[in-house]
Amino acid sequence: MTIRTDLAMEAHELCKSEARDSAEIDGVSAATENYDGVSITRVNITNENGSRRLGKAMGRYVTIEAPNLKYSKDEFDTVCNLICDELRAMAEVDPDSLTLVVGLGNGKITPDALGTRVIDCLMVTRHIKRYMKEILSDNISNVCAIVPGVLGTTGIETVDIIKSITEKIKPQLVIVIDALAAADIRRVSTTVQIADTGIQPGAGVGNNRECVNEEVLGVKVIAIGVPTVIDAASISDAKIPEDLAPLMVTTQDIDAVIDRMSHAVAAGINLALHKDITPDEIENYVG
Amino acid sequence: MTIRTDLAMEAHELCKSEARDSAEIDGVSAATENYDGVSITRVNITNENGSRRLGKAMGRYVTIEAPNLKYSKDEFDTVCNLICDELRAMAEVDPDSLTLVVGLGNGKITPDALGTRVIDCLMVTRHIKRYMKEILSDNISNVCAIVPGVLGTTGIETVDIIKSITEKIKPQLVIVIDALAAADIRRVSTTVQIADTGIQPGAGVGNNRECVNEEVLGVKVIAIGVPTVIDAASISDAKIPEDLAPLMVTTQDIDAVIDRMSHAVAAGINLALHKDITPDEIENYVG
Amino acid sequence: MTIRTDLAMEAHELCKSEARDSAEIDGVSAATENYDGVSITRVNITNENGSRRLGKAMGRYVTIEAPNLKYSKDEFDTVCNLICDELRAMAEVDPDSLTLVVGLGNGKITPDALGTRVIDCLMVTRHIKRYMKEILSDNISNVCAIVPGVLGTTGIETVDIIKSITEKIKPQLVIVIDALAAADIRRVSTTVQIADTGIQPGAGVGNNRECVNEEVLGVKVIAIGVPTVIDAASISDAKIPEDLAPLMVTTQDIDAVIDRMSHAVAAGINLALHKDITPDEIENYVG
Amino acid sequence: MTIRTDLAMEAHELCKSEARDSAEIDGVSAATENYDGVSITRVNITNENGSRRLGKAMGRYVTIEAPNLKYSKDEFDTVCNLICDELRAMAEVDPDSLTLVVGLGNGKITPDALGTRVIDCLMVTRHIKRYMKEILSDNISNVCAIVPGVLGTTGIETVDIIKSITEKIKPQLVIVIDALAAADIRRVSTTVQIADTGIQPGAGVGNNRECVNEEVLGVKVIAIGVPTVIDAASISDAKIPEDLAPLMVTTQDIDAVIDRMSHAVAAGINLALHKDITPDEIENYVG
Repeated sequence: MTIRTDLAMEAHELCKSEARDSAEIDGVSAATENYDGVSITRVNITNENGSRRLGKAMGRYVTIEAPNLKYSKDEFDTVCNLICDELRAMAEVDPDSLTLVVGLGNGKITPDALGTRVIDCLMVTRHIKRYMKEILSDNISNVCAIVPGVLGTTGIETVDIIKSITEKIKPQLVIVIDALAAADIRRVSTTVQIADTGIQPGAGVGNNRECVNEEVLGVKVIAIGVPTVIDAASISDAKIPEDLAPLMVTTQDIDAVIDRMSHAVAAGINLALHKDITPDEIENYVG
Repeated sequence: MTIRTDLAMEAHELCKSEARDSAEIDGVSAATENYDGVSITRVNITNENGSRRLGKAMGRYVTIEAPNLKYSKDEFDTVCNLICDELRAMAEVDPDSLTLVVGLGNGKITPDALGTRVIDCLMVTRHIKRYMKEILSDNISNVCAIVPGVLGTTGIETVDIIKSITEKIKPQLVIVIDALAAADIRRVSTTVQIADTGIQPGAGVGNNRECVNEEVLGVKVIAIGVPTVIDAASISDAKIPEDLAPLMVTTQDIDAVIDRMSHAVAAGINLALHKDITPDEIENYVG
Repeated sequence: MTIRTDLAMEAHELCKSEARDSAEIDGVSAATENYDGVSITRVNITNENGSRRLGKAMGRYVTIEAPNLKYSKDEFDTVCNLICDELRAMAEVDPDSLTLVVGLGNGKITPDALGTRVIDCLMVTRHIKRYMKEILSDNISNVCAIVPGVLGTTGIETVDIIKSITEKIKPQLVIVIDALAAADIRRVSTTVQIADTGIQPGAGVGNNRECVNEEVLGVKVIAIGVPTVIDAASISDAKIPEDLAPLMVTTQDIDAVIDRMSHAVAAGINLALHKDITPDEIENYVG
Repeated sequence: MTIRTDLAMEAHELCKSEARDSAEIDGVSAATENYDGVSITRVNITNENGSRRLGKAMGRYVTIEAPNLKYSKDEFDTVCNLICDELRAMAEVDPDSLTLVVGLGNGKITPDALGTRVIDCLMVTRHIKRYMKEILSDNISNVCAIVPGVLGTTGIETVDIIKSITEKIKPQLVIVIDALAAADIRRVSTTVQIADTGIQPGAGVGNNRECVNEEVLGVKVIAIGVPTVIDAASISDAKIPEDLAPLMVTTQDIDAVIDRMSHAVAAGINLALHKDITPDEIENYVG
């Protein structure tokens, strides 16, 4: 594949269109459902052949597409609830288990800021559980969060930061949030991918992504990603000069898109981790 | 021309390469000089034919290219001094005349934020001249600045805002600063264009640019622009879906580039408007 | 009065407590109502004596106090609706009239950023009415907005910027938004004042406020303000060194407070200006 | 002491003025030098009595005061060089040793953002040393950096984040940067404190500071702090309501002050850690 994409569903589409036949790929299954204008595509990669063909690790990838998410409050609410449902289907969370949410990417580069912005909207409770347990109701789970930064500004491999903190605080679940690259510009601003495979080196916005997965961290890792750029190769065959900073192709409304998407992802996680919580209770804690 | 560019020198290059002959274009002259690794190209459009062929208004366009501006303090200083010299060659400024500097663009979209960021670094003195004249030395000129916003967020045509303020405060010179689109990605982060034509509707980052020139404002208008994006068409023949927000193609280090470039442009303007001013005096006023 | 406050209701309280008697002040009437934990105090200054005693212009001042606004979604909604009702009581707005909303203050100083932040959340429609009227339903009013900046960074008196734009676009109503100073720290983060007097030079956050009122602009001016600081004198008798930048006393959560308050004020204005609009429709336009 | 201050030199002044005699305090020595209008005060706390009296850990505290730092380029340069000299006097740094710089505080609250802003200007090299060693000259030291966030947003004790990363990457030196509280408003914007004691729970801007020192981390810890607020008690005897967010008293130009101060501190660290480096080389790496 010459066009790079972080979305398993796009990798699957591209792979099938290249194969020029309608036969299924061994080791890959895919199915799509619809909910009120929002579609969910589930791609499962079940063996090495599927993994090699799609260029993705074995595991489950759920892609939620909401073409009107930017404008429609209804689609926004649907997406929040779907993220919640899919997270709960991938991982059991109970009020006594600790979840570490990691906001990846560089908060200073708008299309790469999704991870850090989700953390801003997250309901973090670990310190309250430790020091003021009495003010928390029983349905509130134990959640903490970090923004590790990027190799270029810390000088430290991001995975090493996550790993050392994981070893220290011993969460039962790690959720990593990252901005992704898509092949199709229409998926920027409309799409969320949830995967139980963690993060593999891929297209992304930054160019130095490292593996953050269960094998490395020793604890279940769910990755939530939102495409915020498309790979320059997706719209061009032109040769980009080698000595340039990597190109970034995105839409002019990316700032508003990142804002909207980070709220949706944070709301989905908040709903999934805490039992029977209402939006008002979330406002109570997040402020 | 199918590839859109705001740089007269690129329009000239593209026009000549399309013509596939080396003959000069009637109504266009161009010449390039070099200063310590920094080049200056002067394109003069002197008649209607030249204007039509290049798709630019008649007038003088000076393009400063500094390939290492991002890293080199020497090139940075050279560029500041060249901006100062070219501004002074285009307009006479004396301590008694009033200059209005206008920072165009949307400060919330990084590649469009150049104009507003230049204003942040500008030495504004009009209020001191009016209310505390005694603390200003005689070499300090009379400078004020506005950030009018963009049509999409104000609902008011930018040119109407500039025009109404110009009529109220009656400056002798207006300098407008804007982010530009280039055809060649290498010009993003390395190039400054100074033109005595004001701003014409062009490629730009936003899609609703209006004419801001001497004919409209009734006062001399100099435009300073820096390419921060390339037109998507420059790297692709692909059709972009019509209902999408306009694409934006830029480099991943655009935030740092905008920061560097806005400091260079502001320093060039500060040096040009005030006589014999030192960088330390500028810090005094800008803070 | 030695303690400065921008709130007419606090000026009234201070004035009465200084007078040490419970008699009413001639030319001032005040009354308080309660709605679900939110109180509204209406202070009317009806003659010169009242104006001199309270140090405020004659007119109507409505103060909404919501002690739990920061946390409670219910109080937030109540406040939005009260702002809407009070605005409608002070000014008639119909779909054909034009309203100019002005965000005062310096967006780079957090406690002074309220005005600019409200504009970010405002539903601006004037350009759509002009260029794409067909996509707007009839209940949507004609709204535009500017962020004029502050004298210290523009060098231009803010009132002159507002006046010149008002003369150009001729609105039927001007709403100015500004951060205020209160005397009581408990009012920071909990209070909104709406006045039909415009803005008078007062405590404020900046120190150079000018009159922005109907007399100056020739059009009805409503001021909406939120206390974000308290006057240093309110908590101290200590002498502050003269050569210092003015002190600013606020709460550590001021960033979150400004965010919350600017959303409430913007929502109140959006609801007031457009007829029968739903929050979903607002999201459609504001994005 | 009822007035809280993070500056050892202020604690010393307050202690002596309370004692109402001019006798030295046992276990405390203090001396002041001057360099071109910039003063350096060295307070050494040498025994338990001194520590108890001043409410500070035993160790060396160097306070640099530059009253015109905000405006004067000369004082700025003097302060950068003094920070460099004092850091080198406290810790040996050679090109093969690894230094971890930690930016403490909440980047979203302006007066608490100093730590994160210093990291933005820091010359980070560890990843270049590891992956592209050949492009670094021999005088460049091995530096990495983290921004751990604050307990209220991560839910994780800051010291635990620093400790786990320190254990993973094993630096020879840790430098922690934090915003401080002063007793005298004149020290906000003019003062830098360097201490070989690390950070002790103190006044600070946040209210949950934990010990970050050699005893906890097992490696030498130098703390660099800049006062950005004064304790509310310093200007008032008034009782602040208990249920409020903590008050913050600062100057209106705090945003510009933080910008200036973080550049000075970063430049001082960059000069100290790398041998014979020029400002131009720093720009090369920091961008």
